[in-house]
Amino acid sequence: MRAGSREDQGRRGEARWADVETDWRALVARDDVQLVDICTPGDTHAEIALAALAAGKHVLCEKPLANSVAEAEAMAAAADAAAARGVRSMVAFNYRRVPALALARALVADGRLGEVRHVRAVYLQDWLSDATAPMTWRLRRDKAGSGSLGDLGAHIVDAAQWVAGQTVTGVSALTETFVRTRPSGTGTDEVTVDDAALFLARFSGGAVGTFEATRYALGRKNAMRLEVNGSRGSIAFDFESMNELRFYDGDDPAPEAGFRRILVTEAEHPYAGAWWPPGHLLGYEHTFTHEAADLLTAIADGVDPEPGFAEGLRVQRVLAAVEASAAAASVWTPVDGAGPAGNGRAEVTGAAKT
Amino acid sequence: MRAGSREDQGRRGEARWADVETDWRALVARDDVQLVDICTPGDTHAEIALAALAAGKHVLCEKPLANSVAEAEAMAAAADAAAARGVRSMVAFNYRRVPALALARALVADGRLGEVRHVRAVYLQDWLSDATAPMTWRLRRDKAGSGSLGDLGAHIVDAAQWVAGQTVTGVSALTETFVRTRPSGTGTDEVTVDDAALFLARFSGGAVGTFEATRYALGRKNAMRLEVNGSRGSIAFDFESMNELRFYDGDDPAPEAGFRRILVTEAEHPYAGAWWPPGHLLGYEHTFTHEAADLLTAIADGVDPEPGFAEGLRVQRVLAAVEASAAAASVWTPVDGAGPAGNGRAEVTGAAKT
Amino acid sequence: MRAGSREDQGRRGEARWADVETDWRALVARDDVQLVDICTPGDTHAEIALAALAAGKHVLCEKPLANSVAEAEAMAAAADAAAARGVRSMVAFNYRRVPALALARALVADGRLGEVRHVRAVYLQDWLSDATAPMTWRLRRDKAGSGSLGDLGAHIVDAAQWVAGQTVTGVSALTETFVRTRPSGTGTDEVTVDDAALFLARFSGGAVGTFEATRYALGRKNAMRLEVNGSRGSIAFDFESMNELRFYDGDDPAPEAGFRRILVTEAEHPYAGAWWPPGHLLGYEHTFTHEAADLLTAIADGVDPEPGFAEGLRVQRVLAAVEASAAAASVWTPVDGAGPAGNGRAEVTGAAKT
Amino acid sequence: MRAGSREDQGRRGEARWADVETDWRALVARDDVQLVDICTPGDTHAEIALAALAAGKHVLCEKPLANSVAEAEAMAAAADAAAARGVRSMVAFNYRRVPALALARALVADGRLGEVRHVRAVYLQDWLSDATAPMTWRLRRDKAGSGSLGDLGAHIVDAAQWVAGQTVTGVSALTETFVRTRPSGTGTDEVTVDDAALFLARFSGGAVGTFEATRYALGRKNAMRLEVNGSRGSIAFDFESMNELRFYDGDDPAPEAGFRRILVTEAEHPYAGAWWPPGHLLGYEHTFTHEAADLLTAIADGVDPEPGFAEGLRVQRVLAAVEASAAAASVWTPVDGAGPAGNGRAEVTGAAKT
Repeated sequence: MRAGSREDQGRRGEARWADVETDWRALVARDDVQLVDICTPGDTHAEIALAALAAGKHVLCEKPLANSVAEAEAMAAAADAAAARGVRSMVAFNYRRVPALALARALVADGRLGEVRHVRAVYLQDWLSDATAPMTWRLRRDKAGSGSLGDLGAHIVDAAQWVAGQTVTGVSALTETFVRTRPSGTGTDEVTVDDAALFLARFSGGAVGTFEATRYALGRKNAMRLEVNGSRGSIAFDFESMNELRFYDGDDPAPEAGFRRILVTEAEHPYAGAWWPPGHLLGYEHTFTHEAADLLTAIADGVDPEPGFAEGLRVQRVLAAVEASAAAASVWTPVDGAGPAGNGRAEVTGAAKT
Repeated sequence: MRAGSREDQGRRGEARWADVETDWRALVARDDVQLVDICTPGDTHAEIALAALAAGKHVLCEKPLANSVAEAEAMAAAADAAAARGVRSMVAFNYRRVPALALARALVADGRLGEVRHVRAVYLQDWLSDATAPMTWRLRRDKAGSGSLGDLGAHIVDAAQWVAGQTVTGVSALTETFVRTRPSGTGTDEVTVDDAALFLARFSGGAVGTFEATRYALGRKNAMRLEVNGSRGSIAFDFESMNELRFYDGDDPAPEAGFRRILVTEAEHPYAGAWWPPGHLLGYEHTFTHEAADLLTAIADGVDPEPGFAEGLRVQRVLAAVEASAAAASVWTPVDGAGPAGNGRAEVTGAAKT
Repeated sequence: MRAGSREDQGRRGEARWADVETDWRALVARDDVQLVDICTPGDTHAEIALAALAAGKHVLCEKPLANSVAEAEAMAAAADAAAARGVRSMVAFNYRRVPALALARALVADGRLGEVRHVRAVYLQDWLSDATAPMTWRLRRDKAGSGSLGDLGAHIVDAAQWVAGQTVTGVSALTETFVRTRPSGTGTDEVTVDDAALFLARFSGGAVGTFEATRYALGRKNAMRLEVNGSRGSIAFDFESMNELRFYDGDDPAPEAGFRRILVTEAEHPYAGAWWPPGHLLGYEHTFTHEAADLLTAIADGVDPEPGFAEGLRVQRVLAAVEASAAAASVWTPVDGAGPAGNGRAEVTGAAKT
Repeated sequence: MRAGSREDQGRRGEARWADVETDWRALVARDDVQLVDICTPGDTHAEIALAALAAGKHVLCEKPLANSVAEAEAMAAAADAAAARGVRSMVAFNYRRVPALALARALVADGRLGEVRHVRAVYLQDWLSDATAPMTWRLRRDKAGSGSLGDLGAHIVDAAQWVAGQTVTGVSALTETFVRTRPSGTGTDEVTVDDAALFLARFSGGAVGTFEATRYALGRKNAMRLEVNGSRGSIAFDFESMNELRFYDGDDPAPEAGFRRILVTEAEHPYAGAWWPPGHLLGYEHTFTHEAADLLTAIADGVDPEPGFAEGLRVQRVLAAVEASAAAASVWTPVDGAGPAGNGRAEVTGAAKT
């Protein structure tokens, strides 16, 4: 079902795609193009986005927003300027469009979790567990920027900040590369990115969190998990059961309290009203369907879609802090531009608070 | 079912307890006592254990072994000396006696997980989520030594090291106290221990891990969880389902592979052969039953039981490193006495390894 | 996302649908129509299908095939005759296209379950639990044929027979209508179908089974569940977790055996190779996508797709036997055309076999 | 841990058992015995119970109460007469003492499920899946009365009636023996009981239910499961997770509703207050501990314990109706002494009610 393959693109005019360009500059120059969806590798995001915004095209950009904070800053500034002219931009953190995570966000926003204290976020895959799996561009720093950190970690940083309603203010991190060389053609090639990234975090509202991204968690295929504990309630999510949200309502009387398995397919649930009857599940692609619907609606309504490039930049700064901490003996590293920890103890940066 | 209540103790001679002493020194001095089980608060462990061992009594000591590394070192030295005289000692890490965790250990020891790469260990409770819950001695550093770190963290450090077959060589840590004062009598009292402790770790065999201990994970009643991923297999455990082990066998063909829910109640399973038919569960107290059986068998066989005080000391050193790191901006802190990281890159201490 | 709404249909020629007819006879008469997908209520299936097949159109017909055995017999006969002329027909038991159920079928077909002994099949929904929910055509016998039996029961009868590789030879049944009148406009209307249908069954290969279909299982939104136990293995499935199959391999050594949670998203799994990387789930609509792909492939290859109308008829006969048994004090009722129970004890019809 | 082994019994007077008799008549005749616990095979229950009650001993009798309805009737009558003299009797349906099932019962009794409509009860084991497993007395009708029906079915009939608060008024049943001969010494022996028993039921309050008992559900070790759906709520239980109850509260707003996993270990839960802190599980044996506590408390309080012999008789009558229906082509068979179906449609006996 890989629509848009090269073969398809070769048949332009045959009604599969309305038209095709093989040079992004030509695309950006066309008058009949109003929106550019940037799905290229990270090292080209900034250049394309800046050109498209300058040309007055709305932009949807894949995550992570860029390969560096500097690029992301330039993109966020350009997006701000474009927004003033009615040109919209959005970063493709598609997991915000999972109905169960959108419900989690709504519960936190409604105060149902009370004061948020704990975040636990992991993104576990296993496709590199086999040490003889071949080299790919994703394992080269010059191409991919980073390894599991940018690919998987970016998702959980954004999801955690969004759901918890707090931003990460500082981190202590560790990265590891388990398999240092991999087969490539007739020889071997060096892996120059992280295989796994683990970090502790503090949030602007006083919460603390653990994060882990890895491609070596054998048996976990796409376990993007988020658990948030507050003073009044808790939520837990696992993308491998993406239609379910676990919710613990601390207001329930003790003998009846328990994590509820909410099947997020009711008409009242985010996005779900547009689909099937209750209990009929949605799949991965509808994170993109919802994303596109939200983006197009925002454009039609003349408002900025979320998350904008400023939020992409915020994630980029967390990733940069993670790499900086890992390179400096895990020392506590504040996230640039993030406010102090929200519990009024701004001077503390990872030290024991007891 | 709180056997041993004061009322019971008042009826000595009435056949409930064979006899009772209210001064531990008197107990240790008795000729008819062969074994001392130390269940007192941590600040008295060392004194009692040293006296009991000197008096030739076998000793079972609650965890954590002591309130400081210095005390634990003295205890381990005394245990070594006593062992030479046939006097046995054991530290009460009772979770090693959960059949499912013993099965996990056996699978790792048999090589079924291959090279261990990831450890994920949490111990989540929620009894302090309510900010108005009253002060207790457990929240005072002078009595309890530390908070969730020593109470809950000690268990997962021991379990992780034991199951993974690797020791923790260094950590980066963060601790937090969410509620700083609590009601006490007619006033309030200051909480002087950690409410939560989070840390990253490296292991002697090259694995990396995340650890978290907290009493604020609302809805999690006793979620002592351990997940270990290796190159050949993975295991996952949650004490709230203590009779189950999840095992992923990477040798299974891909279309048939999946985490197996093993009900650890078969005659072939650790400890289970002594109990019920398959599918009839065991409860918490049998962690103690198994512990006592193992200790008494070791004494009868004239061998040292496991875990001995040396292992209790090893855990104590990890806890000390956690507190030291948390007090020093989360900087990477080696664990005293632990060998270098087992992947031959001893110079690295938490820095990025890419 | 209700494509095909009236509004859409009003804009014919506007490229949403290639064209629209509002009279099925006009549709069947068109030369440029090669395939007819019958999604109308059950009482019109036979007429449309017979006309379409006679006109040389391939036919995909929704389930249940018809509202009576007589209609289904005529349709199956017409399908047979049409097949001889290269015209294909298929009944839309779309749950056969759930990858996890297709994997279950493959495991049974490969002998991995050994001799199949037990089938447990339920289809639980809850949208009628509220006794004040309004009347609909689905609750009128003249329109819907039956209630939960035809709507939900048809699916689990087909799925059970297909996965187990055995046909139902006889049943003992009970039906119930919990709420006998429902609000309709300003008055109330009588419910003339079953709210729930429960039955016991014997299968051609010697297995025994329980079946239940209901719309009153409060909290169960679309719990189409199937469990099959054999002498060598077992499988379990729940549509509310439609990307997962539980498989117990009896060949595993006892200490390592357990139901495996197979995430049916691997490239080697049925249908899944055409979609996302492992762990990225599919949703309900792809049961239809797969169905269409299978049908079109069969047409292109010049072979009969499965399940054909003969299998739709087989299900219809089971439904008829269920209603007959329920109307005759649950007495054992053989299924017309089904062979004897496969264990060589054909004389037995539900009586105790001990 | 098999206390009470022959070796123990040989050491009478050595304080393990206070004393031992090898002839039950001698036991019943002793003045210092106040309570008799009948754990012998079913064919001796009646004789022992009648003698013990006549001798003024309180009696706890294993389930099923007897091997026939006639015996059970005599026992219930004797129990009634004894109760008038202050002598108590109880039948050992120990699953009523599982805290999670006691909580389920309390929720139904409190009206939290509303009108109960559906019962789903299975008791699945797998120890006979292997066709070469040897013959045992449990597979002989003369010894065991019946097979899985009396051994496993009795438990779920009692549990279902008790939790649902309704009695079974009629059944339609099917029994099966999959393996007809089994190895015995050097030859083979005939199996003369059911391997599996399946039945449909109606309840006195209008609910309908399915029941299944089998020892051939490969992979299910002790899956005693009960699900009850009402107009206002639902519960689900599985003994393989015996400390958990799933509860769906239909009063929750739709977007927040879901089955709650209640860990039945809170101080407010039935029995649990006497044990550990929350989240520390109980095992199988405490069904007996609770049973003994309840019995002794009733005796001390001078009230009749539950369930009494009358309830054991009620279960016996259901088992008899199951066997009668299975022997008569599954025809609907009323349960002797049970009232009419509680929905005011007493004339209906399994026929379709639409």
